[in-house]
Amino acid sequence: MPEKLPVNAGRNTACLLVHGPDRPGIVEAIAAQVVRHSGNIIALDQFTEQDATSRFFQRVEFAIDNDPDTYGNLERDLDAALTPYGLSWQLTDRSKPKRMIVLASRSDHCLVELLWRHSRGELPVTIPKVISNHRDVEQTVAQFGIPFHHVPSQGADKSAAEADILRLVEGNADFLVLARYMQIISGDFLAGVGMPIINIHHSFLPAFIGAAPYRKAKERGVKMIGATAHYVTEDLDEGPIIEQDIARISHTHTAAGLQERGQYVERAVLSRAVQWHSEDRVIREGNHTIVFA
Amino acid sequence: MPEKLPVNAGRNTACLLVHGPDRPGIVEAIAAQVVRHSGNIIALDQFTEQDATSRFFQRVEFAIDNDPDTYGNLERDLDAALTPYGLSWQLTDRSKPKRMIVLASRSDHCLVELLWRHSRGELPVTIPKVISNHRDVEQTVAQFGIPFHHVPSQGADKSAAEADILRLVEGNADFLVLARYMQIISGDFLAGVGMPIINIHHSFLPAFIGAAPYRKAKERGVKMIGATAHYVTEDLDEGPIIEQDIARISHTHTAAGLQERGQYVERAVLSRAVQWHSEDRVIREGNHTIVFA
Amino acid sequence: MPEKLPVNAGRNTACLLVHGPDRPGIVEAIAAQVVRHSGNIIALDQFTEQDATSRFFQRVEFAIDNDPDTYGNLERDLDAALTPYGLSWQLTDRSKPKRMIVLASRSDHCLVELLWRHSRGELPVTIPKVISNHRDVEQTVAQFGIPFHHVPSQGADKSAAEADILRLVEGNADFLVLARYMQIISGDFLAGVGMPIINIHHSFLPAFIGAAPYRKAKERGVKMIGATAHYVTEDLDEGPIIEQDIARISHTHTAAGLQERGQYVERAVLSRAVQWHSEDRVIREGNHTIVFA
Amino acid sequence: MPEKLPVNAGRNTACLLVHGPDRPGIVEAIAAQVVRHSGNIIALDQFTEQDATSRFFQRVEFAIDNDPDTYGNLERDLDAALTPYGLSWQLTDRSKPKRMIVLASRSDHCLVELLWRHSRGELPVTIPKVISNHRDVEQTVAQFGIPFHHVPSQGADKSAAEADILRLVEGNADFLVLARYMQIISGDFLAGVGMPIINIHHSFLPAFIGAAPYRKAKERGVKMIGATAHYVTEDLDEGPIIEQDIARISHTHTAAGLQERGQYVERAVLSRAVQWHSEDRVIREGNHTIVFA
Repeated sequence: MPEKLPVNAGRNTACLLVHGPDRPGIVEAIAAQVVRHSGNIIALDQFTEQDATSRFFQRVEFAIDNDPDTYGNLERDLDAALTPYGLSWQLTDRSKPKRMIVLASRSDHCLVELLWRHSRGELPVTIPKVISNHRDVEQTVAQFGIPFHHVPSQGADKSAAEADILRLVEGNADFLVLARYMQIISGDFLAGVGMPIINIHHSFLPAFIGAAPYRKAKERGVKMIGATAHYVTEDLDEGPIIEQDIARISHTHTAAGLQERGQYVERAVLSRAVQWHSEDRVIREGNHTIVFA
Repeated sequence: MPEKLPVNAGRNTACLLVHGPDRPGIVEAIAAQVVRHSGNIIALDQFTEQDATSRFFQRVEFAIDNDPDTYGNLERDLDAALTPYGLSWQLTDRSKPKRMIVLASRSDHCLVELLWRHSRGELPVTIPKVISNHRDVEQTVAQFGIPFHHVPSQGADKSAAEADILRLVEGNADFLVLARYMQIISGDFLAGVGMPIINIHHSFLPAFIGAAPYRKAKERGVKMIGATAHYVTEDLDEGPIIEQDIARISHTHTAAGLQERGQYVERAVLSRAVQWHSEDRVIREGNHTIVFA
Repeated sequence: MPEKLPVNAGRNTACLLVHGPDRPGIVEAIAAQVVRHSGNIIALDQFTEQDATSRFFQRVEFAIDNDPDTYGNLERDLDAALTPYGLSWQLTDRSKPKRMIVLASRSDHCLVELLWRHSRGELPVTIPKVISNHRDVEQTVAQFGIPFHHVPSQGADKSAAEADILRLVEGNADFLVLARYMQIISGDFLAGVGMPIINIHHSFLPAFIGAAPYRKAKERGVKMIGATAHYVTEDLDEGPIIEQDIARISHTHTAAGLQERGQYVERAVLSRAVQWHSEDRVIREGNHTIVFA
Repeated sequence: MPEKLPVNAGRNTACLLVHGPDRPGIVEAIAAQVVRHSGNIIALDQFTEQDATSRFFQRVEFAIDNDPDTYGNLERDLDAALTPYGLSWQLTDRSKPKRMIVLASRSDHCLVELLWRHSRGELPVTIPKVISNHRDVEQTVAQFGIPFHHVPSQGADKSAAEADILRLVEGNADFLVLARYMQIISGDFLAGVGMPIINIHHSFLPAFIGAAPYRKAKERGVKMIGATAHYVTEDLDEGPIIEQDIARISHTHTAAGLQERGQYVERAVLSRAVQWHSEDRVIREGNHTIVFA
């Protein structure tokens, strides 16, 4: 007798994110479209904000045949079903990993963590290239078999460097990750790049906004340090927070010791944020995120 | 202009738990019944085990009118819709708090935590009575305005005491909580009581099964102690785990110090388990739980 | 044969805190005084800041006879031995619990936690009285058998209320605890009271300084909330931090839900700070604390 | 004016561990020897077990001149001073990093974490070589510039493989680390190797002793998984525990997902244990450890 297979065995997985104003019937309307196209729901998370905004958020993962027409038809029907509700939605074929380009500077701890998790097949992404304004991480990147691009960024005018980065990124990425990239991103770059950018800040924001958070933490005498992964917006350190975590510290730690300890929090927090983003678990809503983790 | 109200304002909330073998279309079928009875889904969690069992689990919370007929009609239609799928389901009117009877012995830390959270309106339960085999906690219980019943349980034969407890519980409770109740529950009692029983064990099970876990922890030299809340079954300390947590310890703690520190873990873990159970967030499946927390 | 007793059995315990500029020989000089007076060291923590300040910090706990003269002689000798080094020191007879007066307002969660731990013998303090600007907690305090004093504090001028509190405190306390006491303490009060004051702030300072931190946390979309226990100084929310902790939150929590969840962090953080302070584990140095926990 | 230097600037650091039966005067006797040889104490942790054993434990770190004779003289004097007390002691020149040889099998997560922390200068060790019974990690080790040795270990008789390892280790290491080395160490090997061996077990011992702990964790339905670093003894999984930690899991994790998640706990726990051991922060006492971290 053959081993019993899971109901969804051998089929592709799709992910649908929906958000907008709540109205009765949305869950059913979405589920009906999945069924109509012979999909089978594997996991569903839905949440309605219980305040005057009554915002509706849903993530649904479902098994579906990877037929070339299926996605087109499903998208057409979702559009017809959800547009009347004023809902935003995004359908992803999870057999196609997102393309992630990483920007780094001299520190390699966050970069190595991402490259290492990727090399073990733990992150559902491809990494077409790594870009850095320094050459320090070049050899490390090469060891992982990922193309490296050096784009220096000296002097006050960053526009040439940003233009170079835009050319390298355009058409090659679905999102960017700033893995301790020590350059401020301009509003022009943000407007031009047209894709989400995830940054890691080395403090439990909004504490210690700006530069040198570990030194500030030492000066203030806090008992824990943290890290924050967030989407980049024009307001430095003010974008929607995806994930945060902390580590306990004590009086025995120097500022350098805080930094060393903090780097392990940074790499864990950034990895979780990248994982959740690449698995379509994050919905951005104003300056907040809804994370179905 | 009146303040904008949430979509679901002024309506009652219901909670539906469903589990059983997965088949395409279940989510839609459930959502259709909610819509049909003018319900509006507030939160939905669904999960299908991706192995050969393909078990389906869903919790859905929805706003619905508190009309006396609505629940009856909805139940009838759910039965018709879900029975063909071979699914188990349970519908709860969340305007009616569950009745929780607490059994305690001499230690009051878990008991006080539950009474205190209840008195602040944080637990959606009523507490018709507290039963104890000792009188130590009688005055504490009285201060919270809860009836206290003393049911001594000495000697080898516990059947008389268990019969007394059954009489006190019957028709007065929806679930029992053993808040460090230091008596072993017989199979007969379990069979007769016909409702879930939640116990707190003072170790991170399956480590240190049985008596004196803090002493055993000290002897083994572990670096953390824990607590485990689980449903009671005939197999002592082997029932489905609802929640666990730990605290770090060090060589400076004596066995008595471990116990003192551990009691804060116990009361937190038991409180979370009680909260989740009373909010219908726990589905029991074999010797496991699915917790939609 | 009699059971073997610990070396220090049946003797009193003393605690000595020392801090100041480092110089070789301090540890030996202190240990020599303990030995000279027939003390036996039970636990010693020492730490020198490895920067240009080279500040020395030490806590030593030792068994010593409770003879009335012993403390006087030891103090005289410590003075002679440590003054040449420019060191500050404080000797405590641990058989005499510190007297702690608690100030509260309407919220009782932090207050109850302290009263409860005290009633179980877990805090080495006495509580001569509880003072509040409201009567909400009066009955709760009475249940623990602690005297309650109502000192209303309305209007802009708080000087009369502060004078009343000073009179209640004077000669009756070794330190004060603000257990969610919702009044700002004036510089005059601080100068006049002459004892440490511990406050609990409901955020992971320095994030969300000032009022309504849970609302601010919700607005900012952070993924964790926290609490901070600190000594009160004239600069609001800027005093030396004793302890901090956090809890993870998610998009499903309302601002009220954050507050409910945060109260459990507050009471744990304040309890630890009170415990460490009352066990002489905290040395205050500028705007920092060294905590030998 | 020159910048003020720390008191201990430009001097070497030594570490002294002492343990044995408590008697008054030990702390002073040790401090006197440090002072006599012009040392200056930087950090001191001392602890006496408050039970009938009255065991004394101390770690002291001090600045001292790196003169070739100083250590010899200090050792001679410590011997004279501490032998009468029946104390065991160990003096370490912290300018000489310990030599750590790592044994691995196919999994590289723990190995890479150690190599990576070492390459960043975070672990005070040298790594003379890595030994594995498989070639899977050979290239990874090479990228870190560490010699790799392949010692296959097939069949029931492991004595030849163990003899090969002994030859590779002898005279080249101060301690061994089993970084998910999937071979059972024989009593003969333990007796012959004459140095501490640190192992990482992928459960929160004593839960899930033996093989396949993640599968067992899934079957038991626990809500957290963990890892345990311990010294290896003849009793498998029963050696003195150095460090443990856990991660929360949920019903959504498959057994493979538990393993993936658990590997991040394993590498963190093993790294901390290695760090503490190599910084002389761990005293082994019977089947326990005292960790001055």
